[in-house]
Amino acid sequence: MPKLLETSLGVINVGLAQFAQTVTAAGGAATQVDWQPPALGDRAAGMALARLTGDARIEQANARAFAAFLGAVPVLRGIGAAGDTLPGMGERMILHAGPPIEWPRMCGPMQGAIVGAILYEGWANDADEARALAASGELAFEPCHHHAAVGPMAGAISPSMPVWIVEDAARGARAFSNINEGLGKALRFGAYGPEVLQRLKWIECSLAPALGTALGLLGGLELKPLVAQALIMGDEVHNRNAAASALLLRRLAPALARARLPHEELAQALEFMAGNEHFFLNISMALCKLALDAAHGVAGSSMVSAMSRNGVEFGIRVSGLGDRWFNAPAAAIDGLYFAGYGANDAARDLGDSSITETAGFGGFSMAAAPGIVKFVGGTPEDATANSLRMRHITLGESDSFQLPALDFRGAPCGIDLRLVVDASIEPVINTGIAHREAGIGQIGAGLTRAPLACFIQALCALDDELNGR
Amino acid sequence: MPKLLETSLGVINVGLAQFAQTVTAAGGAATQVDWQPPALGDRAAGMALARLTGDARIEQANARAFAAFLGAVPVLRGIGAAGDTLPGMGERMILHAGPPIEWPRMCGPMQGAIVGAILYEGWANDADEARALAASGELAFEPCHHHAAVGPMAGAISPSMPVWIVEDAARGARAFSNINEGLGKALRFGAYGPEVLQRLKWIECSLAPALGTALGLLGGLELKPLVAQALIMGDEVHNRNAAASALLLRRLAPALARARLPHEELAQALEFMAGNEHFFLNISMALCKLALDAAHGVAGSSMVSAMSRNGVEFGIRVSGLGDRWFNAPAAAIDGLYFAGYGANDAARDLGDSSITETAGFGGFSMAAAPGIVKFVGGTPEDATANSLRMRHITLGESDSFQLPALDFRGAPCGIDLRLVVDASIEPVINTGIAHREAGIGQIGAGLTRAPLACFIQALCALDDELNGR
Repeated sequence: MPKLLETSLGVINVGLAQFAQTVTAAGGAATQVDWQPPALGDRAAGMALARLTGDARIEQANARAFAAFLGAVPVLRGIGAAGDTLPGMGERMILHAGPPIEWPRMCGPMQGAIVGAILYEGWANDADEARALAASGELAFEPCHHHAAVGPMAGAISPSMPVWIVEDAARGARAFSNINEGLGKALRFGAYGPEVLQRLKWIECSLAPALGTALGLLGGLELKPLVAQALIMGDEVHNRNAAASALLLRRLAPALARARLPHEELAQALEFMAGNEHFFLNISMALCKLALDAAHGVAGSSMVSAMSRNGVEFGIRVSGLGDRWFNAPAAAIDGLYFAGYGANDAARDLGDSSITETAGFGGFSMAAAPGIVKFVGGTPEDATANSLRMRHITLGESDSFQLPALDFRGAPCGIDLRLVVDASIEPVINTGIAHREAGIGQIGAGLTRAPLACFIQALCALDDELNGR
Repeated sequence: MPKLLETSLGVINVGLAQFAQTVTAAGGAATQVDWQPPALGDRAAGMALARLTGDARIEQANARAFAAFLGAVPVLRGIGAAGDTLPGMGERMILHAGPPIEWPRMCGPMQGAIVGAILYEGWANDADEARALAASGELAFEPCHHHAAVGPMAGAISPSMPVWIVEDAARGARAFSNINEGLGKALRFGAYGPEVLQRLKWIECSLAPALGTALGLLGGLELKPLVAQALIMGDEVHNRNAAASALLLRRLAPALARARLPHEELAQALEFMAGNEHFFLNISMALCKLALDAAHGVAGSSMVSAMSRNGVEFGIRVSGLGDRWFNAPAAAIDGLYFAGYGANDAARDLGDSSITETAGFGGFSMAAAPGIVKFVGGTPEDATANSLRMRHITLGESDSFQLPALDFRGAPCGIDLRLVVDASIEPVINTGIAHREAGIGQIGAGLTRAPLACFIQALCALDDELNGR
C-alpha cells in the first residue's frame, strides 16, 4: 500500500476559500491560507511592486525616514494666532482638512465650518453672506497640511484663531493645530450657531492667553512621556484622549494658577479643559504631524508621511514623493450613531486626524484602548487584532510608545506603501462621524480604512521616480 | 482482545503531581488535575467546612451582605480633623493600621510613625521623648478600623490630622482616611524627619482646608463613577492610582480655583496633588471600608469584611462574626526593591490598604492594571491570572467596576472564607514595602497573600457560632 494512503490526507488551499470549502463539504480536511494577489490583482501595480520590493535605495531611504520619525522630540511650546504663526498663512485665507478642494465641491460640514470661520472673523454678517463670500473667489482655501498644521474633522483654521505650537527639540521644526472646542455642536463638525462662535471667541480671548502664559511658566511641556503614559491608561490618542487630557490638565493646572487670572476666569478655564476628554486630540495631532514631517522628503522613501480626508477625497503623501497628494474617494464609516441618527445622515470620512494613525496611534494602537471598542462597535479582541494586523504594513515599532495588551511591544508605525499594496491591507482609522449637512455637528463615531487606491497610485509614482519609465 | 487495549491508555491523576510524573516518565499519557485537600488537610477545619458548605442560613446571609456591599453609594463629602470627626477618637489617642497591637510589639515603621505623630501633635520635643511617652502607657493606641477609619502602611492618625469623609448616600454611614503624603520619606512608611512633619503641617493648615472648601462647592463627589473610569484607565486603585488621582484633580481643580486661595497657595495645592500619583489611594481605601462596613454584621455571613496588617500580624474580620479579629503572623513580601535595598531590609506586611483587595480591587483587579505588573515583578498574563484565580474565592462580580482585559466582566469581590479554605487559595494583595526600621521609609513594592490560617480560624468560629459546639 503506498505510504501516502496510510495516513489521512489533508489539503492546504492558498487563496480563494471556495476550493477549500468544497473539500471540507465532501468530508475532507482542508487548511485555508488567507492570501490574495498583491494590489487586489492590479497588473501594473503588481509589476511596480515587484520592481520596488527589495530595492536597496528604498530600504536605505526608509531607514533614514523612520529614524527621523522616531527621533523627533515634540515639546508643547506655546500658543499663537494662526495669522501670525502659521507659515504662509494669508490674511484672507481659511485652512481646511485633507487634500486641496474648492468651495463648490466641499462636503456639508466643511462648508458649515467655513461659514462659521467667516462669521467668526467678522467678514460677513450672516450665513448667506458668508456663503456668497466663500463662493466669490475672494478668499483663499488651502489645506492645513500646506501650512505645517492639522485640524480635526473640517479642520477650519482662520487667521484670528489661536493655535498650539509644538516644536521639535531635536530639529527646531514646528507643527500646529487649533484648540479643541469639545463635543456636540462644534465648528469642526460643521456647526456655526451663536454658541459655537461665542465659545471660539472665549477660547481666543480668555483660554488661549492663559494657556500661553502657563506654558511659558513651564518652559514648554515634553509630549512623548505624556503620550506614553496615556497609552498605558487606555488612550489611543485619536478617538480616546481621556487620560492624555487629564494628564495635560494635571501638568497645566498649577502653572495656570500662577498665571494669576481672576479666580472665576481660572475656574472656567480649568472647567472647560476638565469637561472635554478630547482636549488633547489636537495636540496629539500636531505632535504626529511634527514627527512625520521629520520623516518627509527623503528621496526614494516609500514611507507614508500623511493620510488625510476632506470629506470628498482621502489623500496620502509619501516621504519620497514631495508635496503630491494621491487621492481616492473618501469612504463611508462603519460606526455607531447617536440616538436619532443613522448611516444616511453621515458625511464621508473627514479630517486631518488620521495623522495619528499615520504615526502609529488611533486604529494602529487600538490594543491600548479596550475602553473605546464598545463605542465604535467592537470587542477587546477586535482591538488587539487591529493592532496586530497593522504590524504587517509598518516599518517597525515605536521605541517610545508601548501597548500593554501586546505585552508592552511598541506601537506599529511607519506605514510602508509597498507593504500596504502587497498585502492589500488598508490602514485602519478610528474616527468621529459628522452630519453630512452644514450646521449640525457630530452624530457618531466608528472605524474606517484608508482606500487602497491611494497607495496603488503612490506606488506607481514611486516606480516612475526610481525606475524612470 | 479486550476493547480497553485497542486504543491508547491515558491516566487522570487528581492531587499529588508526582504520580502523574511517574506515568509520563514511563512514556504514558497523564492528565494532572490540580487539587488539594481543603484547609491544606486540617481535619477540624475540613469537618467545619463540610458542615458550613451549602448551609442555607449562610447562603441567605451572604446574599444580604453582598447586596449591601454592592448597594453602597460612596460620596466624597469633605474633610474634618480626626479628633472632631472619627467616632470614639480620644484626645490622647493615636490610631494605627491592622488588628490591635501594643507599643512594644509594634514593628519599626509603625513605631516610627507613632513617634512622628507624637512630634506632630507637639506632645514631645524629640524622638527619644516621644518613644518614652509611647512606652509610658499615657497614650491610647487603637486600630483605625475601630474608628470607621483606614490608613495605608503604618496608618498613624492622631487627633489634629485632617481626614477625608466618605459618606454612603444610601445609608448615611461614613468612613474615613487620612490624606496621602506622597512617596519616599513619609510618616506612613515610618519616617519622621523635619520635612515629613513640615509636610503634614502644610497638609493640615493649607491643603486640607482648601480641599474642604472645594468639596463643599461641589456638593460632594460621587466616587463609583470615578473609580469605574480609573479601572478602564489601568488603575487597580491600590498600588496604582495614577488615573484616579488625575481624574480627582480634574474634578477638584475648578472648585479649588473658586475657593479663592491666594494664587501661589492654590498653585502649591494643585502641584502637590499633581505630583502624587497615590493621592487617591486613601480615598479608595475609605470607599472600600464604607462598602464593606455596609456588609458587616449580618448574622451567619461568611463574607470577609476586612483584611488588615499591623506589620506583625495579619488579621481579618468576618461579617457574621462581629468585631473579632482572626490573626496570623504577617507574611514577608515577594517584591522589587529600590536600589540599595533588599528583602533583609523589609518590614513584614503592613497597612489597612488591603481593604481594597477585600472590596475586589488591588490584586483582585490586577487584570485592569498591566502597567503595574512590571513594578511588582510580573507579566500582563500574571495580572490576568491573579484576577481569574480570585474568582474562585469570591461571592460574585462587581456591578459597577469592570475589567477590560476580562472582556469587561465585573471585578471579583466579596471574599467567602469557606471558598478560601476549600480551595486553599489565599487572597492576593498588591502592596508597598516599608523598611523594617523606624525613620527610613518605602523601599519597594510587591505581592503578598493573606495567610490561610486567619480564614481557618474564622471558619471554625463560624461553625461554633452556627452549629453550637
